[in-house]
Amino acid sequence: MVVFMKNNASEEEVEAVIKKLNAFGFDVHRSSGVSQTVLGAIGVSPGFDHRIFRGLSGVADVQRVTEPYKLASRVGRDTSTVVDVDGVKMGGTAITVIASITSLESILQLKQIEPKLRSSGVSLIQGTVLKPRTSFYDYHGVEEEHLMLMHQIVDECGFKLMLEVSTSDLAEKTANYASMLLVGARNMQNFGLLQVLGEINKPVLLERGFAATVEEWIMSAEYLMRAGNTNIILCERGIRTFEVATRYTLDLSAVSIAKSKSHLPVFVNPSQGVRLRDHVRPMASAAIAAGADGVVIHLQNESMNVTKSVSEALNLDQFRGLIEEVKQIGQIIGRT
Amino acid sequence: MVVFMKNNASEEEVEAVIKKLNAFGFDVHRSSGVSQTVLGAIGVSPGFDHRIFRGLSGVADVQRVTEPYKLASRVGRDTSTVVDVDGVKMGGTAITVIASITSLESILQLKQIEPKLRSSGVSLIQGTVLKPRTSFYDYHGVEEEHLMLMHQIVDECGFKLMLEVSTSDLAEKTANYASMLLVGARNMQNFGLLQVLGEINKPVLLERGFAATVEEWIMSAEYLMRAGNTNIILCERGIRTFEVATRYTLDLSAVSIAKSKSHLPVFVNPSQGVRLRDHVRPMASAAIAAGADGVVIHLQNESMNVTKSVSEALNLDQFRGLIEEVKQIGQIIGRT
Amino acid sequence: MVVFMKNNASEEEVEAVIKKLNAFGFDVHRSSGVSQTVLGAIGVSPGFDHRIFRGLSGVADVQRVTEPYKLASRVGRDTSTVVDVDGVKMGGTAITVIASITSLESILQLKQIEPKLRSSGVSLIQGTVLKPRTSFYDYHGVEEEHLMLMHQIVDECGFKLMLEVSTSDLAEKTANYASMLLVGARNMQNFGLLQVLGEINKPVLLERGFAATVEEWIMSAEYLMRAGNTNIILCERGIRTFEVATRYTLDLSAVSIAKSKSHLPVFVNPSQGVRLRDHVRPMASAAIAAGADGVVIHLQNESMNVTKSVSEALNLDQFRGLIEEVKQIGQIIGRT
Amino acid sequence: MVVFMKNNASEEEVEAVIKKLNAFGFDVHRSSGVSQTVLGAIGVSPGFDHRIFRGLSGVADVQRVTEPYKLASRVGRDTSTVVDVDGVKMGGTAITVIASITSLESILQLKQIEPKLRSSGVSLIQGTVLKPRTSFYDYHGVEEEHLMLMHQIVDECGFKLMLEVSTSDLAEKTANYASMLLVGARNMQNFGLLQVLGEINKPVLLERGFAATVEEWIMSAEYLMRAGNTNIILCERGIRTFEVATRYTLDLSAVSIAKSKSHLPVFVNPSQGVRLRDHVRPMASAAIAAGADGVVIHLQNESMNVTKSVSEALNLDQFRGLIEEVKQIGQIIGRT
Repeated sequence: MVVFMKNNASEEEVEAVIKKLNAFGFDVHRSSGVSQTVLGAIGVSPGFDHRIFRGLSGVADVQRVTEPYKLASRVGRDTSTVVDVDGVKMGGTAITVIASITSLESILQLKQIEPKLRSSGVSLIQGTVLKPRTSFYDYHGVEEEHLMLMHQIVDECGFKLMLEVSTSDLAEKTANYASMLLVGARNMQNFGLLQVLGEINKPVLLERGFAATVEEWIMSAEYLMRAGNTNIILCERGIRTFEVATRYTLDLSAVSIAKSKSHLPVFVNPSQGVRLRDHVRPMASAAIAAGADGVVIHLQNESMNVTKSVSEALNLDQFRGLIEEVKQIGQIIGRT
Repeated sequence: MVVFMKNNASEEEVEAVIKKLNAFGFDVHRSSGVSQTVLGAIGVSPGFDHRIFRGLSGVADVQRVTEPYKLASRVGRDTSTVVDVDGVKMGGTAITVIASITSLESILQLKQIEPKLRSSGVSLIQGTVLKPRTSFYDYHGVEEEHLMLMHQIVDECGFKLMLEVSTSDLAEKTANYASMLLVGARNMQNFGLLQVLGEINKPVLLERGFAATVEEWIMSAEYLMRAGNTNIILCERGIRTFEVATRYTLDLSAVSIAKSKSHLPVFVNPSQGVRLRDHVRPMASAAIAAGADGVVIHLQNESMNVTKSVSEALNLDQFRGLIEEVKQIGQIIGRT
Repeated sequence: MVVFMKNNASEEEVEAVIKKLNAFGFDVHRSSGVSQTVLGAIGVSPGFDHRIFRGLSGVADVQRVTEPYKLASRVGRDTSTVVDVDGVKMGGTAITVIASITSLESILQLKQIEPKLRSSGVSLIQGTVLKPRTSFYDYHGVEEEHLMLMHQIVDECGFKLMLEVSTSDLAEKTANYASMLLVGARNMQNFGLLQVLGEINKPVLLERGFAATVEEWIMSAEYLMRAGNTNIILCERGIRTFEVATRYTLDLSAVSIAKSKSHLPVFVNPSQGVRLRDHVRPMASAAIAAGADGVVIHLQNESMNVTKSVSEALNLDQFRGLIEEVKQIGQIIGRT
Repeated sequence: MVVFMKNNASEEEVEAVIKKLNAFGFDVHRSSGVSQTVLGAIGVSPGFDHRIFRGLSGVADVQRVTEPYKLASRVGRDTSTVVDVDGVKMGGTAITVIASITSLESILQLKQIEPKLRSSGVSLIQGTVLKPRTSFYDYHGVEEEHLMLMHQIVDECGFKLMLEVSTSDLAEKTANYASMLLVGARNMQNFGLLQVLGEINKPVLLERGFAATVEEWIMSAEYLMRAGNTNIILCERGIRTFEVATRYTLDLSAVSIAKSKSHLPVFVNPSQGVRLRDHVRPMASAAIAAGADGVVIHLQNESMNVTKSVSEALNLDQFRGLIEEVKQIGQIIGRT
């Protein structure tokens, strides 16, 4: 931590800050220039809230030096984490494509397309769950008994199932039917939920909040890891910006940054970020080229009822074309 | 709802969209120009998801016309809502200042400053609660038994208590000790929590999410109201922007906009938005001038331990000066 | 300047950075902790580009400590600057309302409303000029000879004229007819234009760019001042954010921040920022309450042709009501 | 254009708007529902400012339907534009890598690295020019006579030269020495400059402004094209968002969107957007995978003086590795 004193800070103020820093167990190195004094505090622990010092008399600014996370940090870790989802390895040299099928009807018809999905290398399906929505008046998801049904069908087809959990009281129930759990962007800082999921032994795909910095995103992963769950995958799905051509702005730099800061795998959901079908394939390819370990892509069964249709879902042929392209790009950058 | 067809949309595509609109019960008015056809769909209900139409062949864009909320809307309501918090009226012509005291030690010493707070017209105190934090390593709040203690002290001083609820399982317990509940910015779209608070008969102060539009903010209020709780107050506390001089950018236009769109009272928390003590008073005054019905201000007891100090809290004299100023500004714009 | 070395930086890397810092004339104070070394460099001059050090081997981050501006800085200045616009004082204890009349027809009819404007205390009129627009197809402003006509009418009415300059080659010509020049948001970092205006002896109202931080805004003021023009007024008019309810998000915290960082007067243009007539008055009042020294308000003559009408312009009665309100608010916070 | 009337708009107000629409030459189609009337106006021309209607009594909102640009639009154009820069083709199936060498010293040593650059397929060099900078105190670029020197060296090495133009008075002079001109992000809406460059017969690389939407970016290209210059290439280099890990957020969705809206080639400058060396290569590859026609990459000569070093520049080996990777990715998505 570095404390920048105000230009006109008095010697008494400087000394009061040094005394306070010592009281917290810091070694202090003082640098005094013509107009300003800077105090370097060595020895800060992750749990210390450096903002306390902002309120002290004579202090202009306080900058944290060490990262506010430890378990998720790449510092001191030579290898990237590989998460095992019931036998499917994610991260490392693997490229994973998760098929997100958000209509129950389509999942009921999964067997029709199962051979084509399998031959493309898909092994994980995101199903649809009981989920409160932005508007009270919107569609609220399927009934609970459907979880069991979805699990059964996905299992019979030989795939693993990923399900979103949006409230802590549904966490355990959902975990019974899923190989992997999803924390949506809106819940990235729902710390009550993170605490519960940290105590359940299932891999978690943690979406980045729409207004969360990369640092805050990794801090939420740290939260899950501290609570006991180390099988975490980060997932970028777009941030809020002034641009209105896309619903969110997919931040692919965040993939490269997150992988340099953390040893955890990083996925991208271009379907959610862009919300326009024609742009899903180029953005999925770009995500892999940027270093992502996998993508989540909305898939839509041709025969499905239009009332459940969404503007970003690909049909099976588009979906298979996308997988072919991201595989080839993955090979160029050293993936298998 | 208005459906804009692509420039080169075929007659078949246009007719397919019209047929689909009719199937959903809409009256359709067709406007065909030289290069483009526009379909006006009259009769849309709030629960209808207009995005379904974005996925149809030949459709360029779909625009919702009616607001996606009803109970919270100003349309058809002549009067602004006044929320009654155990006898304290908020909204209407009243200007309310809530003192936020986020350290338990300071609340324990509330009696020392009670006469001065009362003479300034304060009637509500925000206390501090069990609350998961951004970083797992940060301070996690006070023990549960302290809720009772806080309630007792605040009650003996003759004030009402507001407490934050951040997970649904703590909602009822917290409601037992509080006259008003707070939903923090991070939970504005925690719909599981909103559902529970909608069923509890306590006024709710609903903070705007850091990346939420005014429309989404009102939709979260609508969510609470649909669930049965009509005593909702909106609270602006800053949005995420590129500006780094303040932690968040306090969006005071949102106050004026929200009051024109909704009949609910709108508060502002300038302490959280700006996070710099010197700017709290001007921003509180600006909030009232912009039409806010009240402000939430961090107050810090002079004698409190610096380890709990925060950079935006005012001392008692600054706090009383602020109240004096906002009262005078309130009078100019017709408040009492 | 403070240089943060990477956790695993070698002693050779640390020493290379120290040597380089010394070569630039810095005194270096070294703080080495268990895992990281921090170097405090004392003596930095404003012209030094600290980013050079980011590229060095072993460097994790570089933080500037001193502000990147001098002439515009409040440091070392006890008093706020008062700008004299041909006898009209702006800043200090004064509150100024500039009437922006962007239609030539309306200015031609200025004499009709002159007594009412004068009795409200208006002394400055913003006229309309030759100005390239966002779209090539939009209206490009009035002919050059109209500058003279505008000047004549505004002068006969006893007001001062403010005119926008958007290209350097029009600067001198425009300056001949105006008492004050305006640099629009899009030109805040048009340094060629700033250089020219810095050499012309006319006060400049410098609008903040839509994506400019407060620091960059003050740096553009510094640019003008370094070029020789010290009569600069800053003007906030909204920044780009994700919020779509208003065209821009008026950042009133920026007023309070800019006034604490710089001795220059700060104005606000709520008409441009909000673009919705009903919200102009509350936001103008909020601006003054936040500490602004003046506001620029779009005024529209009742009788003017609707083809020039804009959605944010006030009519004369609304305009006079606004002035009355901001005057009263100004008095509360110590203005005259 | 579609005009949405307020819910309580009177019949008089509706008819007044229809009359006004007719006066502007529109055919009007009226759709009246239970609570709201919507007016479809067919026949709008690009030069019409639809905002005029926002100010009318009873109007809730006005939405433009047609794009605000024509010459740059993909509508009605089957083929993508290929720009010819003195024999080098950009766009179409080509992938171009421009080497940006922003230090004069490095350009003077260009012959040393010329064979390696050539064998990697580089044909364009971005040089460094007289350029006003953000801070008056920063380095202001090289002397004018150096333009001629740069041109001579780059020409002798058999490359083409691209130079930035930041003020209209330098446009012609710079054009004498360059095969291609660059409009920087800060000047994207410097319409005076665009007008001049539109009249000069040199290809222009038009960077997207930090706060410009994709639509505004294309509108600036339209501006240049209307003024007579059709050899325009768009260049994404990052937008301002709340994320602080990178200097700007590179918006690669914008590449895919811009290419679907316009027939012009789209380039990306990942060096400027990310400003961190380690992330330039993945983001360049991601740009090509997203559909970009080329990238601009900062190259730094090993032997160059550190005072000109920048944190994002690649050395020659890194640069050649990047070219190899983007070529391979280009092949996968059908480039040559």
